[in-house]
Amino acid sequence: MTGPDSSRIYTAALLIIGDEILSGRTQDANLAYLAKWLGVQGIRLKEVRVVSDDMAAIGDAVNALRTSYDYLFTTGGIGPTHDDITVDAIAAALGVPVIVHPDAQAILAGYYGDKLTDARLRMARTPQGASLIENPRTKAPGIRVGNIFIMAGVPAITQGMLAALDGVLPGGAPVLSRTIAAWTQESTVAATLGAVEKAHDGVQIGSYPFWRDGRTGANFVIRATDPAMLATVASALMAALQAIGIDPVDGEL
Amino acid sequence: MTGPDSSRIYTAALLIIGDEILSGRTQDANLAYLAKWLGVQGIRLKEVRVVSDDMAAIGDAVNALRTSYDYLFTTGGIGPTHDDITVDAIAAALGVPVIVHPDAQAILAGYYGDKLTDARLRMARTPQGASLIENPRTKAPGIRVGNIFIMAGVPAITQGMLAALDGVLPGGAPVLSRTIAAWTQESTVAATLGAVEKAHDGVQIGSYPFWRDGRTGANFVIRATDPAMLATVASALMAALQAIGIDPVDGEL
Repeated sequence: MTGPDSSRIYTAALLIIGDEILSGRTQDANLAYLAKWLGVQGIRLKEVRVVSDDMAAIGDAVNALRTSYDYLFTTGGIGPTHDDITVDAIAAALGVPVIVHPDAQAILAGYYGDKLTDARLRMARTPQGASLIENPRTKAPGIRVGNIFIMAGVPAITQGMLAALDGVLPGGAPVLSRTIAAWTQESTVAATLGAVEKAHDGVQIGSYPFWRDGRTGANFVIRATDPAMLATVASALMAALQAIGIDPVDGEL
Repeated sequence: MTGPDSSRIYTAALLIIGDEILSGRTQDANLAYLAKWLGVQGIRLKEVRVVSDDMAAIGDAVNALRTSYDYLFTTGGIGPTHDDITVDAIAAALGVPVIVHPDAQAILAGYYGDKLTDARLRMARTPQGASLIENPRTKAPGIRVGNIFIMAGVPAITQGMLAALDGVLPGGAPVLSRTIAAWTQESTVAATLGAVEKAHDGVQIGSYPFWRDGRTGANFVIRATDPAMLATVASALMAALQAIGIDPVDGEL
């Protein structure tokens, strides 16, 4: 949104940290929310990894992702308990010490008063050189260090932190999308979809089949950054589908 | 379950392929299902990656994951349309050609009859040297090549393919879990949780906070492969919580 160069493509990765996701106990809800939020900022989510609560696994993923994309977001592992090792793992990956951040300590002291125990003070620890991300929900802040944004695992908390970052990060042109749909088997229209995509540079068409009420259908999602191009391709795709005897719908089924 | 050595730890990774997940349009539902299915087989899901419909991105992830874990599962990108490039990307990563698998061709010919178009025949393509995984839902089969299991993106189809693999893969002892819970802030019990985990080798205790009806609570999930150890740690944790004035519940809140 605030990008100095709207033709540059800004990219991001998400690292989800937590045994509870890998065991299937907890269904992740941060990926889809972050993806849509990034889209609005003009940043494309290009890769996601999920790793366990393990120092080496977190560190290896952090170093791979922070160097491959403009931004790296992490979720999970920043609470007060022994399994919350994200800050330590990221500091180790960056080769910097962990400090008690004075501003974070002040926030927690204001919230907990004389009940600021050692366990709670863990939530004021950051890699050296970090700044804080406001947490309107439960006070213990998120952390920004370099291009890494360290967020909570609990979706309501992470969503609050993202709201605090709204419009702050340099981004490019948002990816726009428009959906054309039809009651058809994907395989019937596969050649048509491919031809229309190929005829329009910089446009992607994704095909997503579904089965409903005993019928087969598919949504065709056109993605582009230029709204005029999006309209052109939508018209071209509808015409091409009609030409092979399909009756397309302008919108999602 | 069928493992020749129950003390060996068997590991797996999941590679989710698809722009629709990375754009936030579609909420993934395969991760949690596969994680639980693997748990029953005695296989631990250790890492998940999500990449876009891009040959290089898929290939790099496939080669990293298939060499790091006992099994690699992929979901997405095996339909009939131009954006379904998983088979091509995996074959390229393995350095083998793509062939039309005769058994897959026979299955599709039996299903589509004289309507077996080129687009539909795409779903019979496999990396050379592959075997097939039955798809009871929509016929087009999944693919096994080496330690890679190539599955559909649509959850109902993938679940059918996993049912066909039930009990087939060598695995170790399943990870068992038991939950103790309490109405308390995590930070109040953090030291206790850490001490109990540290006192019991091979046991993990995860702490998962929640907020409900204006109150704060947390579930403590104990994970171990030995049922006797699980019972011992559950008792130890309840006693330790009671010793600091907490009233724990045996079960999930």
